[in-house]
Amino acid sequence: MSFNQFITQSRQRVDRALNEHISRFDAHPRLLEAMRYSLFNGGKRVRPVLVYASAEALSEPNSCSDRAAIAVEAMHAYSLIHDDLPAMDDDHLRRGQPTCHIAFDEATAILAGDALQAFAFDLLSETTDITDTGINARIQLEMIHTLSHASGANGMVGGQSIDLAAVDQTLTINQLETMHRLKTGALISASTRLGALSTGIASDSQLQALHQYAGAIGLAFQVQDDILDVTSDTETLGKQQGADAALSKPTYISLLGVDAAKQKAQQLHEQALDVLSGFDYRADNLRHLSAYIINRRS
Amino acid sequence: MSFNQFITQSRQRVDRALNEHISRFDAHPRLLEAMRYSLFNGGKRVRPVLVYASAEALSEPNSCSDRAAIAVEAMHAYSLIHDDLPAMDDDHLRRGQPTCHIAFDEATAILAGDALQAFAFDLLSETTDITDTGINARIQLEMIHTLSHASGANGMVGGQSIDLAAVDQTLTINQLETMHRLKTGALISASTRLGALSTGIASDSQLQALHQYAGAIGLAFQVQDDILDVTSDTETLGKQQGADAALSKPTYISLLGVDAAKQKAQQLHEQALDVLSGFDYRADNLRHLSAYIINRRS
Repeated sequence: MSFNQFITQSRQRVDRALNEHISRFDAHPRLLEAMRYSLFNGGKRVRPVLVYASAEALSEPNSCSDRAAIAVEAMHAYSLIHDDLPAMDDDHLRRGQPTCHIAFDEATAILAGDALQAFAFDLLSETTDITDTGINARIQLEMIHTLSHASGANGMVGGQSIDLAAVDQTLTINQLETMHRLKTGALISASTRLGALSTGIASDSQLQALHQYAGAIGLAFQVQDDILDVTSDTETLGKQQGADAALSKPTYISLLGVDAAKQKAQQLHEQALDVLSGFDYRADNLRHLSAYIINRRS
Repeated sequence: MSFNQFITQSRQRVDRALNEHISRFDAHPRLLEAMRYSLFNGGKRVRPVLVYASAEALSEPNSCSDRAAIAVEAMHAYSLIHDDLPAMDDDHLRRGQPTCHIAFDEATAILAGDALQAFAFDLLSETTDITDTGINARIQLEMIHTLSHASGANGMVGGQSIDLAAVDQTLTINQLETMHRLKTGALISASTRLGALSTGIASDSQLQALHQYAGAIGLAFQVQDDILDVTSDTETLGKQQGADAALSKPTYISLLGVDAAKQKAQQLHEQALDVLSGFDYRADNLRHLSAYIINRRS
């Protein structure tokens, strides 16, 4: 299977699993509609793809990997909904579509985000089909703990808080990296760890290598985001080009310039390949993914 | 120990455990301050008290009960922060203090709520001291699943969504009960279940009885809230008296009138005592709690 086929299959797989699990909700229709709207808005599914690629690096992805893939995507979707709110980044456009609070209303957007976070933990804490995969309860707990830690005050939300405080501030490159390591890196790292844990056979050294891999590509992802913010256009991006610059947010471009930023992305890619040296051909999709991240155009 | 002593001890116990666990965060100071502000604003700790009383009905509360108590309180605190936001109920006063978005700002309030939800799951998924209590991983998973289910689209958030849509609407008494069963009842029910599960020895029939107990007192709590909204004053309540009436929200008072509402609260209390008939004296604090809920003045 080519890397492109892997990407396509992973996206189809997580969408199918998402559809199946969200159909079980018997919730207020408007709330459910807003949750679906934000989950199915043409996202690239980078985190679910990472879950599957990490599982594959060790073994076959199973139904527990599916739950992990949905959980990280639900967590990501909730964070985007809340980040886009008027009190936060005040974005009207996301992936070329009206943001959740524009398509619905602010209250519904807040609640849809809240419900998506709970949905992620709901999925990971069920025991039905996970038991069949042979994943024991202790590993399942570790998966939940990985996600809760990565998404809370010491992870994603903490990073978003630093980001908001950084508007109009000059950050050092270290401060900028800390912010991104928390804001986007933590969930990317959790995605690789969840994928590996979902196989039930991950060793500590494998988890450690994947953690380093995730650190490198997570930062590369952000550097590339900053590059695209100044070199791409609104149509290709599906969001307002130059939005970060307009908000006076510190970026790798404002700190390093475009050329040095591109060089940094390349270095991070090489670092990601290095730490995977102990894995065989089954980690090839992780290797391709790293290249994809720094070469993507939207 | 008298019931009042039990309440005081439970509050001190959960506050101590909360302090200890939140001190481990190394998060953005403003975010952490907003989380602390909302957790320690003089709340009555009804849900933690329920956790301890339910644990006590079966055995001794342990460190796993402490985690359960913090988790339900963190979840409750997050829901209040988000409910108070301008796009939701737009409340400026909570327990006599400025609400989180007034004391801080809207973005910080949204993020503090988000982080508190993650905190709840973080606490329940750790394995360190829980292992010492003899609680096995499968029970721990069941606790997490109980909380995630109670707080998401099929629980608390779903209820809040129905509540927002109900402004200026006429609900039937059944619709009103469905809304409250989700909005506040689900977390109250989860509190009793978590308390019982935390002992590691809860039987299915005991869990079922506690579920019915929680259903009765959860509804009684809401009926009493509606009664206080029209019969108390702002100072005693610590929030705006008449706020629900001003928002044209349907209440037990608007549907039943004050006298019938008081009668309903009394009936629910008797129902709560009935379903506890299979428990011995160790469930007395649950019995007292039911009486406390319908007799409270704030």
